[in-house]
Amino acid sequence: MTKFKQITGNIASPKGFTADATHAELKFQKLDLGMILSQVPAAVAGVFTTNKVAAAPVILDKEVVAGGVAQAIITNSAIANAVTGEVGMNNAKKTQRLLADKFGLAPGHVAVCSTGVIGRQLPMDKIALGISKLSAENGHAAGFAQAILTTDLVEKEVAYQVELGGQTVTVAGVCKGSGMIHPNMATMLAFITTDVNIAQPLLQETLSEIIETTFNQITVDGDTSTNDTVLVLANGMAENAELIAGSEDYLTFKSVLATVCQTMAKQIAADGEGATKLIEVTVTGAPDELTARMIAKHIVGSSLVKTAIFGADPNWGRVISAIGQVAPFEVPDIELTIQGDLVLLHSTAVDFDQAELSEKLKEKNVLIEADLNQGDKTGTAWGCDLTYKYVEINALYHS
Amino acid sequence: MTKFKQITGNIASPKGFTADATHAELKFQKLDLGMILSQVPAAVAGVFTTNKVAAAPVILDKEVVAGGVAQAIITNSAIANAVTGEVGMNNAKKTQRLLADKFGLAPGHVAVCSTGVIGRQLPMDKIALGISKLSAENGHAAGFAQAILTTDLVEKEVAYQVELGGQTVTVAGVCKGSGMIHPNMATMLAFITTDVNIAQPLLQETLSEIIETTFNQITVDGDTSTNDTVLVLANGMAENAELIAGSEDYLTFKSVLATVCQTMAKQIAADGEGATKLIEVTVTGAPDELTARMIAKHIVGSSLVKTAIFGADPNWGRVISAIGQVAPFEVPDIELTIQGDLVLLHSTAVDFDQAELSEKLKEKNVLIEADLNQGDKTGTAWGCDLTYKYVEINALYHS
Repeated sequence: MTKFKQITGNIASPKGFTADATHAELKFQKLDLGMILSQVPAAVAGVFTTNKVAAAPVILDKEVVAGGVAQAIITNSAIANAVTGEVGMNNAKKTQRLLADKFGLAPGHVAVCSTGVIGRQLPMDKIALGISKLSAENGHAAGFAQAILTTDLVEKEVAYQVELGGQTVTVAGVCKGSGMIHPNMATMLAFITTDVNIAQPLLQETLSEIIETTFNQITVDGDTSTNDTVLVLANGMAENAELIAGSEDYLTFKSVLATVCQTMAKQIAADGEGATKLIEVTVTGAPDELTARMIAKHIVGSSLVKTAIFGADPNWGRVISAIGQVAPFEVPDIELTIQGDLVLLHSTAVDFDQAELSEKLKEKNVLIEADLNQGDKTGTAWGCDLTYKYVEINALYHS
Repeated sequence: MTKFKQITGNIASPKGFTADATHAELKFQKLDLGMILSQVPAAVAGVFTTNKVAAAPVILDKEVVAGGVAQAIITNSAIANAVTGEVGMNNAKKTQRLLADKFGLAPGHVAVCSTGVIGRQLPMDKIALGISKLSAENGHAAGFAQAILTTDLVEKEVAYQVELGGQTVTVAGVCKGSGMIHPNMATMLAFITTDVNIAQPLLQETLSEIIETTFNQITVDGDTSTNDTVLVLANGMAENAELIAGSEDYLTFKSVLATVCQTMAKQIAADGEGATKLIEVTVTGAPDELTARMIAKHIVGSSLVKTAIFGADPNWGRVISAIGQVAPFEVPDIELTIQGDLVLLHSTAVDFDQAELSEKLKEKNVLIEADLNQGDKTGTAWGCDLTYKYVEINALYHS
């Protein structure tokens, strides 16, 4: 398989994409309105929150993705435009139209995303003024990653390049999200641009498959937001021969896209509210991948496991109990390692150096590996520890 | 329906039951071994953890319940006898035999329960010495509620009386559990004694039904222990005519048993790790009871709702988002009240006095009521707030 490499870049790195950001006075002084623009209409694929209380922009973007083509994404932070009724839906549509008018696009080719407080209406005068300041030039592409943050601590970006059929293809991603940073703010947004030439149905199929093992495998606090959105724009400007499902080039592209998604998923987990550590849980020896992923996600989402990791406590009892809670079969032969140290064999405790392992658990990255010995399928999930800061963030910053 | 009344009593209040407790040196100075004894063999019903990593005593007690008859329950705290392999199972059986020998019972009529650290073996010499000190006299019945605690803060007991067919029937309950008080301790144990005359199959059927709306509707941290056990002993010594399914007397008894279970469930939720408040969530207007209960339990289990209540924040966005996450249908017409104050109508925010409601949320009991307006079925769940103390308890007290 062709090698692909990480590059220093941003969401505007793929050919034909620009991005800009501005301060629309939704937040205090910070960038809060961002745009991604493609020179030409692009194939668009998307996946959205399963929350039945979907925000207005989510409903609108589902229509855009159904159309198969998009040329721009406009995103505001501070206000989620969720639980805002008909007024909220009209505001989302108005935002879409304002951006389309400004850059001469079809309104149906503009995706609209919001993240922030639930239940508040967008101040459309400020949105309009903000949009009027956005430029199609590559003025502030790096600013986009800032503009979509709520109170995430770090910007989250990644870019990769790969040769496909003699052409250089770039895939770039940007995302935000870390739980409920500010009350009522819970959205995960991820945007991916690429200049690859790929048909929209194949792009959607690929994204939907990749999501299952990347973004859907992270958890910060077990809550699914009303606004979660992942969008991919592929504008074909790399001029590679159109990717054919199953071909080597397609599989290479899929690996790159999966790597971009996984990198962003881990960035979000590591920046979870109040988090001090990224926790990775890998389950092997499962009869099927779905079960492996489900068990891995349950372990990494357990409050008891999360607090133990915060306390650097190699508390394997909590891990095996978490497995037992959700395993759809008996688990008499679990082999468990924490930070590489074996703590459980044949589902029975083994001697290990508690103090030494506790030291290893003070590292920023924690790895838990559970071999169920019930098959040969694997699954991985990512999360973070549960800390005093998480409680502070969510209890003391009032809505 | 006949009225029933709460009485001051304990697990030994029903006719023909005694209880005792002793210090078997499993814990430091505290009572740690307790026994409930019936003068005559009693009908026994039980429900157990769904955790696939079931502790040895759980496996043993399932056999006892399958036999339909029990005369005693022996319970230790400090050590869960879970993930202890064949040695652990032999220790559970030895405990059963020691108690049977001491009081002249059939070993198969003795239920054995443990709660405490996972992965450690019971010191059988201490257990044997402890059992030798237990008495069939009603020496320390009140001590039983202490002996089964791990680091729960309060003892949890309740007793009710009712007239059935001219006879006074007493139903008493005792329980423990509040999450992971001490690392690896997570067990919920609940024992109910009654002198009612009822056939075992009907007793089991009644218990299994009641569990769904009581113990299964509480959550402290979303984790299911390896040892959870609820046992009911009914020895018939009240000499009422045997209860017939569907009769008025049966329905009255069922109400009493449900009240006893619900009272204990709320006691456990209120004593959740680090909890400062009991949260009750009632969902009405659901198309079926299962959905109502599921949504109520999801709301009360949401970390974001739990932290908001800790912070006395009337954060309705988190409640409606929690509903949207698990509702199997659209929810355009939610009516939401918090502490009796209306905050949402037709799924749209209404004006309310934020400061006044925040004051009300400082009370020890918090009530959230959500009317989905999608039917006429209801469900209730209980939980507690998520606090700094929870994180401290679970992060800093090492395994």
